[in-house]
Amino acid sequence: MIKAGIIGATGYAGNELVRLLTGHPQAEVVWYGSKSYIDQRYADVYQNFFRIVDAKCLDDNMEKMAEEVDVIFTATPQGLCASLICEEILSKAKVIDLSADFRIKDAKRYEEWYGLVHPSPEFLEEAVYGLCEINREDIRGARLIANPGCYPTCSTLAIYPLIKEGLIEPSTIIIDAKSGTSGAGRGAKTDNLFCEVNENIKAYGVTTHRHTPEIEDQLSYAAGEEVLINFTPHLIPMNRGILVTAYASLKRETSYEEVRAAYETYYAGEPFVRVLEKDVFPQTKWVTGSNYVDVNFKLDDRTKRVVMLGAIDNVVKGAAGQAVQNMNLLFGLPETTGLLQIPMVP
Amino acid sequence: MIKAGIIGATGYAGNELVRLLTGHPQAEVVWYGSKSYIDQRYADVYQNFFRIVDAKCLDDNMEKMAEEVDVIFTATPQGLCASLICEEILSKAKVIDLSADFRIKDAKRYEEWYGLVHPSPEFLEEAVYGLCEINREDIRGARLIANPGCYPTCSTLAIYPLIKEGLIEPSTIIIDAKSGTSGAGRGAKTDNLFCEVNENIKAYGVTTHRHTPEIEDQLSYAAGEEVLINFTPHLIPMNRGILVTAYASLKRETSYEEVRAAYETYYAGEPFVRVLEKDVFPQTKWVTGSNYVDVNFKLDDRTKRVVMLGAIDNVVKGAAGQAVQNMNLLFGLPETTGLLQIPMVP
Amino acid sequence: MIKAGIIGATGYAGNELVRLLTGHPQAEVVWYGSKSYIDQRYADVYQNFFRIVDAKCLDDNMEKMAEEVDVIFTATPQGLCASLICEEILSKAKVIDLSADFRIKDAKRYEEWYGLVHPSPEFLEEAVYGLCEINREDIRGARLIANPGCYPTCSTLAIYPLIKEGLIEPSTIIIDAKSGTSGAGRGAKTDNLFCEVNENIKAYGVTTHRHTPEIEDQLSYAAGEEVLINFTPHLIPMNRGILVTAYASLKRETSYEEVRAAYETYYAGEPFVRVLEKDVFPQTKWVTGSNYVDVNFKLDDRTKRVVMLGAIDNVVKGAAGQAVQNMNLLFGLPETTGLLQIPMVP
Amino acid sequence: MIKAGIIGATGYAGNELVRLLTGHPQAEVVWYGSKSYIDQRYADVYQNFFRIVDAKCLDDNMEKMAEEVDVIFTATPQGLCASLICEEILSKAKVIDLSADFRIKDAKRYEEWYGLVHPSPEFLEEAVYGLCEINREDIRGARLIANPGCYPTCSTLAIYPLIKEGLIEPSTIIIDAKSGTSGAGRGAKTDNLFCEVNENIKAYGVTTHRHTPEIEDQLSYAAGEEVLINFTPHLIPMNRGILVTAYASLKRETSYEEVRAAYETYYAGEPFVRVLEKDVFPQTKWVTGSNYVDVNFKLDDRTKRVVMLGAIDNVVKGAAGQAVQNMNLLFGLPETTGLLQIPMVP
Repeated sequence: MIKAGIIGATGYAGNELVRLLTGHPQAEVVWYGSKSYIDQRYADVYQNFFRIVDAKCLDDNMEKMAEEVDVIFTATPQGLCASLICEEILSKAKVIDLSADFRIKDAKRYEEWYGLVHPSPEFLEEAVYGLCEINREDIRGARLIANPGCYPTCSTLAIYPLIKEGLIEPSTIIIDAKSGTSGAGRGAKTDNLFCEVNENIKAYGVTTHRHTPEIEDQLSYAAGEEVLINFTPHLIPMNRGILVTAYASLKRETSYEEVRAAYETYYAGEPFVRVLEKDVFPQTKWVTGSNYVDVNFKLDDRTKRVVMLGAIDNVVKGAAGQAVQNMNLLFGLPETTGLLQIPMVP
Repeated sequence: MIKAGIIGATGYAGNELVRLLTGHPQAEVVWYGSKSYIDQRYADVYQNFFRIVDAKCLDDNMEKMAEEVDVIFTATPQGLCASLICEEILSKAKVIDLSADFRIKDAKRYEEWYGLVHPSPEFLEEAVYGLCEINREDIRGARLIANPGCYPTCSTLAIYPLIKEGLIEPSTIIIDAKSGTSGAGRGAKTDNLFCEVNENIKAYGVTTHRHTPEIEDQLSYAAGEEVLINFTPHLIPMNRGILVTAYASLKRETSYEEVRAAYETYYAGEPFVRVLEKDVFPQTKWVTGSNYVDVNFKLDDRTKRVVMLGAIDNVVKGAAGQAVQNMNLLFGLPETTGLLQIPMVP
Repeated sequence: MIKAGIIGATGYAGNELVRLLTGHPQAEVVWYGSKSYIDQRYADVYQNFFRIVDAKCLDDNMEKMAEEVDVIFTATPQGLCASLICEEILSKAKVIDLSADFRIKDAKRYEEWYGLVHPSPEFLEEAVYGLCEINREDIRGARLIANPGCYPTCSTLAIYPLIKEGLIEPSTIIIDAKSGTSGAGRGAKTDNLFCEVNENIKAYGVTTHRHTPEIEDQLSYAAGEEVLINFTPHLIPMNRGILVTAYASLKRETSYEEVRAAYETYYAGEPFVRVLEKDVFPQTKWVTGSNYVDVNFKLDDRTKRVVMLGAIDNVVKGAAGQAVQNMNLLFGLPETTGLLQIPMVP
Repeated sequence: MIKAGIIGATGYAGNELVRLLTGHPQAEVVWYGSKSYIDQRYADVYQNFFRIVDAKCLDDNMEKMAEEVDVIFTATPQGLCASLICEEILSKAKVIDLSADFRIKDAKRYEEWYGLVHPSPEFLEEAVYGLCEINREDIRGARLIANPGCYPTCSTLAIYPLIKEGLIEPSTIIIDAKSGTSGAGRGAKTDNLFCEVNENIKAYGVTTHRHTPEIEDQLSYAAGEEVLINFTPHLIPMNRGILVTAYASLKRETSYEEVRAAYETYYAGEPFVRVLEKDVFPQTKWVTGSNYVDVNFKLDDRTKRVVMLGAIDNVVKGAAGQAVQNMNLLFGLPETTGLLQIPMVP
């Protein structure tokens, strides 16, 4: 059994990690780390675990945790993992960081977008960006995984085949994304109160959202050139789910079949990416509770653009599920172990 | 592997049966019966099953189905199962009826509340009411299971220990229940449109809801006398979940400990009933997606009453999950097989 | 023009007061009092008022406010109004208190349920409970109005005719109430986050909710005897609305017509109480945004009980609308002035 | 008093027309036309009008209606108004058509996108597109108003100043729109059931939505050249509201001030268009229940694009409110008459 420790176990991503790892046949959570609920029973914070998890929350001592676990998940705000990480920890345990600390290779760029001086840039090169569908081989041998952001996961996977195959003009990419409210975390903020979110939709972080450089980096790697995009996230009155609607101009005339083939090239063997049938578009409800990414596209002959769409459960494939997928790779398990939950409808 | 056929596979309960049986280690669905979607792929109706279920929907031919399956689930409106059932079918396959046809032993009472002449009253005596926590032994040997209604499951389990132990006055029982909208089914009715249900709450079936006699029967068996209740269901703007708030006068002065002990007497060993800790009350979200029933109570010294509360996921423990629990018992499997999903939050 | 000041203008009830008073033909808000947003523009806190209200928030100085306004609304947590009120203020301005401070005549009872020592019990006798439909005449001449709580408004009006006419047994009254989340206020609490409330229903304050004694007092006045009830509120995933489902045993056999006549006796001339037609039950959406109270009842011959139902918009008739209705009475205006908004659907 | 008749009074737009016209000081509804509810009381269909509207629904006889009313609103699916309209009707009553029949001047284009042969192309030239902010003068003298679609209203007003002033490249415009579910109407369709819409987001009509040519026409008039766009609508789990997020490349380097000035040029005197302050973006909740359009923009120096945002209540400014605004203009009333409802929060 893989022993897992979670820093930030009482956030929404932490809760989902506990759900997935508790149901995982070859892993178990042995350290429920928390800042706010130390010494309280985990099941008192998340009553869904009543009679399932008996443990109490412990502190966030990463060094001590590294001695007792095989893998550490950090599901905390940016800055924390990077401030705690060190060679000693990495020599004892694998680290899967769900924050943004090691996603952007350029420390200066990180600092510009996040407003934080990176506390441990020396680990940036070693860290592997844990988008399994693209970086599978590098992940297997890694010690430190930068678990991708929710929007970047969905955006990159929706666009990747077309930018990689050179079918779209990178400078024309526009990503309009919509997320359920669990992405905003469990912190007590007026903006996230039920009465503020319900019966409302808003854009936020217009032109400034921190996932922009992360998406740009991944698209740039695929394009082989620097890519700048517009990315606009929106807050939706639902708990879970991200839908990405992306637009780009085609480089040249192309057919449905050719674009379809591009998606098949990259995703035909992927266990979690489902390329939907023609004219069937992703909806978040069809992936809820699962690690699936549903993608599809539509060509517009009138405007010579392609619309690319993707849907994920932000808490699963956008956070905890992808983290477990990375764990499976790190420990040589079949990649889908413990991750074959069927989407729950309605 | 147990071969299962589902009549009504394209309703919400049918969808959940497919989800649970597809994840069940010892069962498989081999017949997806439907009235409206014959010859269409099941995954075209329920896109969550894309790339998971390849089968097409078949018709609702129960006789033919009985020859090909070990167990038949009927997840259809009342009247259908009772009109199709016959000795020949029951001699070939077990039948678990999710409709109300065989829940009420008295055909005349069925006809009064449902406005239907019972098509096959000769099977009423044989049918076993599939509330596993209470009728476990009878279920094991049955051929025909009347899978309990969603409200009756939650109501009965919340009240059972107190009425069985004679702590409450049966004639004073009032049950005020609240249900998510999946309980209303997937039929296209104006009343169930998003804009009608959202930002609204209403009572329905006031004093006339058809689950009333079913609850009364179960409470009567427990009380050893005829029980009449008030039962008022309400429609809540959420997908899943039932919360029951039940009231009754205490027969005599009693203590928290004594009432607690009554719950423990009946539920201490139950895998799916969780008696919450003192002053922690059930919330539907803590059971979502799972087969758990969370119950608790509160004594009111001022009014000499007890408030009994219960929460279930109406689609799981209130329908498909309980049906699978019954299947497990019928086929000699551990009762929790395929049913240990952890509640999904948020 | 009546000059109005609001203490607590930046809560949800405060916002609604501003909406109603801004649209009121004979009143205007001249003081937007706030604790958290002093010196910020009101329309920066509530952007719905952009280009409609230009004023900045002021502090909560009730004494100073009394010199500049004709009427003071206190839409604040309990304890504040009672700690600030004094003879001098009341000699200068009418005070309509939306908190619970002056609703319960017995200071000891207030202290037991609210856990606060009443800061100014000397005003309890003078204060008039502002349920206009019942206390209209006393309100006209008052200086200090205790604006009723949301649950007590809806509960009392649903039950009043039957208890007043002696048709029901007071000791059997059980009130099961359901409220939208705006009733929980705008404070940043984890429990009221979107992801905690959405897709969930829970009971709270079981047997201990503070509106219990307020309802009991009103029902006791009507019954002419002390009434103890069970009152259980529930939190519903919607913004606005309260639905009350109340139960009581009939004192004697009675007919639909007799009960109907009781409602007509008290409400035939009421502008805001709508007694629905037979077998049509209140739904919160039919009163949203309006000052209406929809009520109806159903007799149950089987159990000899009556089910009484009521629906209000908790922010309007349950708070700000009723406060304006009281203001109209205090200043000799037609009671419906500025309050004839038609319910908004969907 | 202006006498108004409504064809399609029992849809959501019809209900809102009744709400607005009932509260309008100089208009009254004298004909509640309906196809499905003839001879039923209007308040039985929409219980919010109980005790407010006593009339029964009549049929949809437009000719007869024209003899009894001053203005006819057609709030019906496309095709109906165009099939009934004739010179005689127009000689007797003004017609405000809320369907798409007269919005697109080119009958062939209408037929391509709507799949209907236009039944009365002879009135296309006469019809005035009722976007009051742009076509105010033409509206005043018209007999037949094509009331704009919900998405086109919000999209056009968000983009208009920049395309009119030549600041953006028309061929780069991409409009990503999100709508509450009332826009889907009150027809009983499985896709619009609560459980299908709630906890879900989807795009629909990708590259093919019928509002595309309508928006393109309006932008083309403003640009003085033919404009083709990408337009993608999304269905959001909320009742009311449309949010538009539009993207375009700037023709040249420009400053915040210059763009701001463009908006001010066109909207400074507009009673219903609110240009928000810098970096404050539209949210649908701030306009709910009102006729306001909130717009704003953000320049992105990195990509040389501008993001333009707009929010409306689709039932008010996107349908019934705009229709009443047109009526006010047609009858020489102040444009805001009966339309100054303050947005309702929460």
